[in-house]
Amino acid sequence: MPRPVDVPSLVAAAREGTARAVARLISLVEDEHPALPEIVAALAPHVGGAHVVGLTGAPGVGKSTTTSALVSVLRAAGRRVAVLAVDPSSPFSGGALLGDRIRMSEHAGDDGVFIRSMASRGHLGGLSATAPSAIRVLDAAGFDVVLLETVGVGQSEVEVARLADTSVVVLAPGMGDGIQAAKAGILEIGEVFVVNKSDRAGADDTVRDLRRMVSLGDRTEPHLWRPPVVRAVALDGTGMDEIVGAVDAHLAWSREHGGLEARRRRRTVDEIEALALAGLRRRFAGDAGEDRLDALAQEVLDGGLDPFAAADRLLEQAGLSSSRS
Amino acid sequence: MPRPVDVPSLVAAAREGTARAVARLISLVEDEHPALPEIVAALAPHVGGAHVVGLTGAPGVGKSTTTSALVSVLRAAGRRVAVLAVDPSSPFSGGALLGDRIRMSEHAGDDGVFIRSMASRGHLGGLSATAPSAIRVLDAAGFDVVLLETVGVGQSEVEVARLADTSVVVLAPGMGDGIQAAKAGILEIGEVFVVNKSDRAGADDTVRDLRRMVSLGDRTEPHLWRPPVVRAVALDGTGMDEIVGAVDAHLAWSREHGGLEARRRRRTVDEIEALALAGLRRRFAGDAGEDRLDALAQEVLDGGLDPFAAADRLLEQAGLSSSRS
Repeated sequence: MPRPVDVPSLVAAAREGTARAVARLISLVEDEHPALPEIVAALAPHVGGAHVVGLTGAPGVGKSTTTSALVSVLRAAGRRVAVLAVDPSSPFSGGALLGDRIRMSEHAGDDGVFIRSMASRGHLGGLSATAPSAIRVLDAAGFDVVLLETVGVGQSEVEVARLADTSVVVLAPGMGDGIQAAKAGILEIGEVFVVNKSDRAGADDTVRDLRRMVSLGDRTEPHLWRPPVVRAVALDGTGMDEIVGAVDAHLAWSREHGGLEARRRRRTVDEIEALALAGLRRRFAGDAGEDRLDALAQEVLDGGLDPFAAADRLLEQAGLSSSRS
Repeated sequence: MPRPVDVPSLVAAAREGTARAVARLISLVEDEHPALPEIVAALAPHVGGAHVVGLTGAPGVGKSTTTSALVSVLRAAGRRVAVLAVDPSSPFSGGALLGDRIRMSEHAGDDGVFIRSMASRGHLGGLSATAPSAIRVLDAAGFDVVLLETVGVGQSEVEVARLADTSVVVLAPGMGDGIQAAKAGILEIGEVFVVNKSDRAGADDTVRDLRRMVSLGDRTEPHLWRPPVVRAVALDGTGMDEIVGAVDAHLAWSREHGGLEARRRRRTVDEIEALALAGLRRRFAGDAGEDRLDALAQEVLDGGLDPFAAADRLLEQAGLSSSRS
């Protein structure tokens, strides 16, 4: 049995800025504690104030250094910042802890900074179910900016971009040339592009290529946000003010043009659906846990059932009539 | 109204090796055609023979070139090969079409090769619902090997790895050093590592680092598969035979040790759940389409409802009683 939780006290403490309470709430989210619905309901009246900023980019571009430098700039401006390093690669936590330790030390002792990594190891809803709840905790705790950083490569940048109000894509010279950038699909998800390590050879080419491709996109739909391309050297702080400026400008633009609301609505649809699927799974599998789902899958593998029929059976046995009726 | 489809004839033609029939079936999958459940049911008795091989890696490592060179080697051995270039970045198709044209030309006129890209633009189930059906089509059509290639960066390598029997991770010198590789999370998903462009500087370091990390993992759990690290130069075909050998060896190992069955079961659970969620969504939203889900999300955003309560309402209104009762 999980330990009982005094949700009202915990939420009150988190709202007063107690880091331990915030950390505990996120652990409860990560563990999919039975009190989670109560926690989320208690947070509900207090959310919506934070600017959620996604930071994505391939390994080696200096994403962690950039995050840390941005935290310093935001803190210097008096803003409270939470960093949530998310790893959508479900069962693996990889280098998140290492990265945490390195960065913790830099901002240690600063009450206005909260850094936490989260692997979506939960078996129920995955990242799409847990990350939004963690963001709600940080939002309700009064952080002005929540930086969502992807950990590692191959983690779905797109998934993280969907969670954010503003999506920052970090590149380094040599990666950003023409076709490669288009192929990478990053043009579509980035609202702010950062060319880090811009003191290195090839930076001019990368910046020029990105600017050209961004303006190409712009020409066809004139009312779209035109993503700025910022040159940066995160190690010495170069460009960090410009990134913060660009991120703030995007939020203002997005609020004015209605994009922010649409985006948050889509994000909430994703969240509701992930939670509904988790509910469906719980009802179907019941006390037998994963075994019943496995047995159903085995029937499909054995050729006795097709997957659509299996999905119908899952819905029926969870209490629904056929999905195709 | 979608055009009616003669499913039995189409499936029969695909099984006889008619490329047009295969292509049409995959289009129907991609379009989420109403006949899809009938198609999947008709394919069911004929699947299970193909070896599904995932190919992932960051942009610039030469993934497409490697895929194409592998196709040549597999064809020379008389094996029929299908390439499915998947782009999990939901709404965007990115560079898939360009890549297709380039590679098509190389294997044009070869009946034993089928190349197709697929964006998971479907609004119902996304990649996790559609890719398994596309794999079923290729499997039933008698392809010996189905190569699943990820398009672009930031697409979930993990998601693709979950779809495959064997997962090949392609790297290039300069990317694979120690912490970076661990951080990238690729050590966990790769069953075969390929260091492409291994004639370049730094290849020895990359190979050595990878081998060391792979053997570290091995030491703790002695009965695990030890992923081979293959040096390759895809442009001139170096190493391609070794990759095919390693992939075949993994399949044999996986079949012998039961990993294959467990993996295919997990994959089928994912598929069934994605289809069930699609069914749930259809029942909830009905003719009002996405609007009802949007309205529910808006209530959450306005603070009148928390997301768990919204998920309960989705389940209830789709015909289920509360997920928490």
